[in-house]
Amino acid sequence: MTKNLTYAILGTGALGGFYGAKLQKAGFEVHFLVRSDYETVKQNGLFVESVDGDFTLPQVKAYCDVTNMPTCDVAIVALKTTQNDVLPQILPPILKENSMVLVLQNGLGIEEEVAAILSDHKIGEHKIIGGLCFLCSNKVGDGHIRHLAYGKIALGEYTINSEQGGITDGMRKIASDFESAGIEIELAPDLLLARWKKLVWNIPYNGLSVVLDATTEELMTDPNSLALVKELMYEVIVGAKSAGRNIPLSFIETMLEHTRNMHPYRTSMKIDYDEKRPLELTAIFANPLKTALSGGVNLPQIRCLYQQLQFLDARNRIK
Amino acid sequence: MTKNLTYAILGTGALGGFYGAKLQKAGFEVHFLVRSDYETVKQNGLFVESVDGDFTLPQVKAYCDVTNMPTCDVAIVALKTTQNDVLPQILPPILKENSMVLVLQNGLGIEEEVAAILSDHKIGEHKIIGGLCFLCSNKVGDGHIRHLAYGKIALGEYTINSEQGGITDGMRKIASDFESAGIEIELAPDLLLARWKKLVWNIPYNGLSVVLDATTEELMTDPNSLALVKELMYEVIVGAKSAGRNIPLSFIETMLEHTRNMHPYRTSMKIDYDEKRPLELTAIFANPLKTALSGGVNLPQIRCLYQQLQFLDARNRIK
Repeated sequence: MTKNLTYAILGTGALGGFYGAKLQKAGFEVHFLVRSDYETVKQNGLFVESVDGDFTLPQVKAYCDVTNMPTCDVAIVALKTTQNDVLPQILPPILKENSMVLVLQNGLGIEEEVAAILSDHKIGEHKIIGGLCFLCSNKVGDGHIRHLAYGKIALGEYTINSEQGGITDGMRKIASDFESAGIEIELAPDLLLARWKKLVWNIPYNGLSVVLDATTEELMTDPNSLALVKELMYEVIVGAKSAGRNIPLSFIETMLEHTRNMHPYRTSMKIDYDEKRPLELTAIFANPLKTALSGGVNLPQIRCLYQQLQFLDARNRIK
Repeated sequence: MTKNLTYAILGTGALGGFYGAKLQKAGFEVHFLVRSDYETVKQNGLFVESVDGDFTLPQVKAYCDVTNMPTCDVAIVALKTTQNDVLPQILPPILKENSMVLVLQNGLGIEEEVAAILSDHKIGEHKIIGGLCFLCSNKVGDGHIRHLAYGKIALGEYTINSEQGGITDGMRKIASDFESAGIEIELAPDLLLARWKKLVWNIPYNGLSVVLDATTEELMTDPNSLALVKELMYEVIVGAKSAGRNIPLSFIETMLEHTRNMHPYRTSMKIDYDEKRPLELTAIFANPLKTALSGGVNLPQIRCLYQQLQFLDARNRIK
């Protein structure tokens, strides 16, 4: 029997804290980099209030300084993309030969950013795996995570030039560990396609929830916002096509139906906005727009929404 | 010397009250249809607080019921377009042979609506003149109007099929009266062109002021909202072109410069929104979009804004 993989969680928030806790609960060795609530987590561990059953981990391996962390087999990047400027400092120290980097972030251009950091540091060959998380989870207090719904992760391997990476051994290993921790995994042979598909949801709902101060349910109920959601989804599909990825138009109806069946939901971007945190606009809006434009394709309604969000984001942080 | 024209003001609000009061002050016979503040206006007349000098008209000819009003030479439609459903009741009774109708409203499709009412009532031949008002004015209390800036009106004559009407005798007569009352007039030989030019300002600033909860100054200061304002202006010019009207691209810079020189301004649509009144979306957004679409032209960013505004307008009136 092979030795279990060890894990490092960079960013013990609503997402990293949740998945890290699930892995530790299943018996894996997990090391948590913790920021604002380090003292509480160090003392009392993590409490996960979950639709799948609450649980407490009275003791976790918590660190406030990455230089004290051991190197691990899998480094999980679970920060918001708006905090990625710290990655060059915190990622390299926890890597050893053959470590994999699992990036659990939304948007485009994510793995490229990590690849650039690794290449700058000449740490050796590291597989970079992207994970798209379908998770409703909030951090509601120090060391306290509330898991509201879902949890599936779609895993895909990064390749230079964004070609299809197929289903690799690294993906399978991580999938096996996560599944044994009760986390549903989908293996995506084409990471870029998976990322664009996620944007079909994220762009309209995250964007409009902030601009219109609305829940997903309100956006689905009003015929005008619903029409706009559909048009924005269509533009994402056009953007994907410009990147050589084909998403069938029927996927729009699938996403709408999925959203209709969700509980009224405050999107993660709306939560960030309400908490006056910076919005993940570069990964979710700017990079897709840039990709499409470099393919000669303009996405005017997404641009409109992006410009509105930039205005609101800027004002939100000075007010 | 010819007899002075007599005037009826349909809608004694921030706009109708202001221009009507100016005309009466200059010696013209003016009859005011007054709604919510009829009792006050009947008793105390109108008070105009104005950057050009305050004045009071202690007595005005006020009516709460149009059937008591005499017929007039010029019927001035000064309602919000959202109230135009009452026009078939209140416009015909005050018209006599050769009365002119002066429509002081923004947007497209305005004169067509009036023409349809007149044609339904077979009242005879009436000239319809459109007026685009460049006026910052608020109604701040019963019978109390606050004139903040500007006041110019661009007059143009309506023609079936929207051909250029040229500069007509009717326009000249009204212009002469208004000018003698201290109101600046521009004679527009092409009413449809004048209406589209006004939309170059109204669509971005009215729309974004509501969606982003912003003054004109905020929209001009932030680079992202400014970029969006420009793109929306460009789309209006594309829309005008689809209607056979050519607005030079340099007009965008003219409008931006004009707005930069204005005091920070809460647009009329934002005031309507804040007061929970219905927004003038049909005239200012839906009709231009429909015109462009019938010419085979899509205006995606204006559509996006329009759909957002419809969502906000609907919610604003139930909340």
